Amino acid sequence: MPVRSAEELHQAIEAYLDALPLTNELGGLEDSLRYSLDSGGKRIRPILCLAVTEAAGGSVETALPAATAVELVHTFSLVHDDLPALDDDAERRGRPSTHVAFGEGVALLAGDALLSEAFRLVLDYERPEPARELVQATLGMIGGQYLDITGDNSDLADLHRLKTGQLFSAAVGLGLWVAGTSEAERTPWRAFGAELGLLFQVVDDILDGDGFAERLGVEGARKLADTAADRAREQLASISADTVTLGELLDGIVARTG
Amino acid sequence: MPVRSAEELHQAIEAYLDALPLTNELGGLEDSLRYSLDSGGKRIRPILCLAVTEAAGGSVETALPAATAVELVHTFSLVHDDLPALDDDAERRGRPSTHVAFGEGVALLAGDALLSEAFRLVLDYERPEPARELVQATLGMIGGQYLDITGDNSDLADLHRLKTGQLFSAAVGLGLWVAGTSEAERTPWRAFGAELGLLFQVVDDILDGDGFAERLGVEGARKLADTAADRAREQLASISADTVTLGELLDGIVARTG
Repeated sequence: MPVRSAEELHQAIEAYLDALPLTNELGGLEDSLRYSLDSGGKRIRPILCLAVTEAAGGSVETALPAATAVELVHTFSLVHDDLPALDDDAERRGRPSTHVAFGEGVALLAGDALLSEAFRLVLDYERPEPARELVQATLGMIGGQYLDITGDNSDLADLHRLKTGQLFSAAVGLGLWVAGTSEAERTPWRAFGAELGLLFQVVDDILDGDGFAERLGVEGARKLADTAADRAREQLASISADTVTLGELLDGIVARTG
Repeated sequence: MPVRSAEELHQAIEAYLDALPLTNELGGLEDSLRYSLDSGGKRIRPILCLAVTEAAGGSVETALPAATAVELVHTFSLVHDDLPALDDDAERRGRPSTHVAFGEGVALLAGDALLSEAFRLVLDYERPEPARELVQATLGMIGGQYLDITGDNSDLADLHRLKTGQLFSAAVGLGLWVAGTSEAERTPWRAFGAELGLLFQVVDDILDGDGFAERLGVEGARKLADTAADRAREQLASISADTVTLGELLDGIVARTG
């Protein structure tokens, strides 16, 4: 049976998110969580998690809670990043950001609740390992956000290894865990995830005209992106599995225009 | 061997917190976490957790990560609550609150990191159950904070069952889990925790002149506190274990003057 396409996995994530019950006790706060999650995002991290699981011989259905937990952590970080105390962004993907739509206090609590819901989801598994992987990635990401706001970003690669790379890496790690891949076999998959995370960030910076594009110029950034894409393809080629959807995901990031 | 006193358990918590390694990748953000944790708090929740464990026949040392995780969740909630977007409190226990000392952006990230560190700690155990208990309590607490800021606090008991009660209940639940107490035996312990949480909140409101004291008057609130304390004592009396430290903790809350 062929593996599912990125688009099919995207649909699986959206369907799972739509039907996802949130904690009852959140009461009216739920609206702001749904609003934040329902933002037309590309869902690259959860698709990556599902595609890795399927390529490694695991079940997409079993991986859905883990994949969705990664997306919830990502969404939590966007909601808090957009607050006036951090990036002060009034819009996200053409809509008012959560704090503009619901007020700052509610957005603060919505972010806290999204992070907690992510851990609740990833604790659905019988074992604590996936939750441990997600919590380490979250702490790394927060460390990256701190580097970002304190201006201590002399090493841009290090900053993005934390701020973007950690969640990409967790998406891969969780996918492999669900598939039952042994630690010894995980190396090329993880290296692929790290290159994909770097590629994603450089392309993002080229589109936004900041970060790597500001530091290296657009041509320099484009070259860095191409090198990361090449290395990612090499890693994929070294894995004996049906990685066609992972290649598709990679090509989609290279071709991104918005 | 007699159980340890509340003061001895308090010292155990402080020593554990002082020596607790935080995640490396947090970098310079660690200072704001340490500042927030080192606030001269009473540590009632973690002491409760340890006292329950020891009374139920468990090991205080084994319970220390769980007890500390509860304190980290409590501290996260204070750091975020103090932000201008929520309560806008410039001081906590006579010191500048975290956002005044470090700036709003750093305080926001410090709260996020404290919550994540709490989950990291409680995921030290072999099984996911303690982490599940803590995440459910955290979500309930956040729901209570939402009720608090949206003014939908017509049922003050319900609000405080969430905002304060959930973490008291988790402290008891985690202590029992570490001690290996069966689900069937947990009922009076949990009922004790619920009464203690209510008692704590009512006494807090009497000292601050808000909440239950505002709603019921000081005499009415005092009466409610006495009733909760009586019921908590009854629950303790029904448990055949050395609950002397739990009784001491209860008496300490009744006698609180600040």
